[in-house]
Amino acid sequence: MDFKEIIINNSKKAYEMYVPHISVDTVIFGFNGDQLKVLLLKMKFNQQWFLPGGYMKKEENLESAAIRILRERTQLDKIFLQEFAVFSELNRSEETFKDFPDDLWHKKRFISVGYYALVNHKDVSPIGDELSESCDWIYLDELENQNITMDHKKIIEKALNTLREQISYKPIGLNLLPEKFTLPELQKLYEAILGRTLNRGNFYRKIKNIGILKKLDEQRKGGAHKAPDLYTFDLENYFKILENGITNW
Amino acid sequence: MDFKEIIINNSKKAYEMYVPHISVDTVIFGFNGDQLKVLLLKMKFNQQWFLPGGYMKKEENLESAAIRILRERTQLDKIFLQEFAVFSELNRSEETFKDFPDDLWHKKRFISVGYYALVNHKDVSPIGDELSESCDWIYLDELENQNITMDHKKIIEKALNTLREQISYKPIGLNLLPEKFTLPELQKLYEAILGRTLNRGNFYRKIKNIGILKKLDEQRKGGAHKAPDLYTFDLENYFKILENGITNW
Repeated sequence: MDFKEIIINNSKKAYEMYVPHISVDTVIFGFNGDQLKVLLLKMKFNQQWFLPGGYMKKEENLESAAIRILRERTQLDKIFLQEFAVFSELNRSEETFKDFPDDLWHKKRFISVGYYALVNHKDVSPIGDELSESCDWIYLDELENQNITMDHKKIIEKALNTLREQISYKPIGLNLLPEKFTLPELQKLYEAILGRTLNRGNFYRKIKNIGILKKLDEQRKGGAHKAPDLYTFDLENYFKILENGITNW
Repeated sequence: MDFKEIIINNSKKAYEMYVPHISVDTVIFGFNGDQLKVLLLKMKFNQQWFLPGGYMKKEENLESAAIRILRERTQLDKIFLQEFAVFSELNRSEETFKDFPDDLWHKKRFISVGYYALVNHKDVSPIGDELSESCDWIYLDELENQNITMDHKKIIEKALNTLREQISYKPIGLNLLPEKFTLPELQKLYEAILGRTLNRGNFYRKIKNIGILKKLDEQRKGGAHKAPDLYTFDLENYFKILENGITNW
């Protein structure tokens, strides 16, 4: 079958399996120690990049649909997924499938619920689907030059914006950093998310005050400078503060 | 017509007007200077309290549907509505309409998108609809004793939780307080949202540091104590910081 036949065939199955008009898009962030990147699929039929996404089965809720979609694309389980926004504009997707019959499932109006996840990119072997020719990490600062479908660039920006807000009151880093890390490495992550450099002294003071760090009796060896101390997350406190929020008031 | 006929009649119109499976619920918070309250409707047909809610017209997006629903219940326009979560569990609403025919619109599965709004309760004259016998403010600490429909108590809790998180990085108070207010009055609002008392010195220092307050050359007269200074919001800064967030890092 060529991809057009596959899509038409999928459409028939979709009417039986899924709740109409609802879709899920996932923004999966990874961090290479320096920059944030996001997982995208390149579709064969129009050479555009898509977020990993799909539909909600009649027996699922949105979160289980998002977890299933994430697992299909990354083989990852037990990843924390955070719903961040709903995208409900008219004519979001209709144009993309303009060459297809009007009763095509994909051509209907879809209200898409966005979830983001933070993953360790080393744990992920991205897997495309039958409609995509590749599934790849794209650095955030390369998105500008890519042909990205529909409103998916806007969805990524909204996810990043939510992440920026959430690091004001939630700990972050557990899935994005290796188990042991230095304070400069943690600062790099915050700077990559915020898109700006931070004052080192302020950052160290504030991050230590939150109470999620455990200093190890080890140093990162091998650099030209004084070997920096290694830290790990105090998991008990990390999850407690993830639940209750960082106290600002 | 009795309410059962009205519901069945509405169901027919709904199939023509709205996108199936998608609904909107709004959590409208008010503040009386001491406690937070929320706007609820009491339904004639089962005597349960409901959040103001409705469906999305085929030509609307979710935000315009939420604004329309809010206007219908409160006559308020130009209110800032914030989407905060989606509720997609199975069997959310089916039980509520168990005595109705199976093809009833309201009995279908609905994925509901929650919006919250903060309003000045003095500006609002709550208006019920043809199915409700009243539309009233209920104080948060009275919710426990009320018969609240479906998952609407969970929706209110989630909205309140989001509000608690958002006051870590967004200014708040513009629609909840009178134009001129004292610092003790502003602190009361934060305490009502957080559900705990705050240290006065810390609160004053932090709230002044954000840069959204303008001290007026007036005092609140009439109390037994020294007349406290009146403040107002510096609207330019308020909206700038609402847009960019309070810098924590």
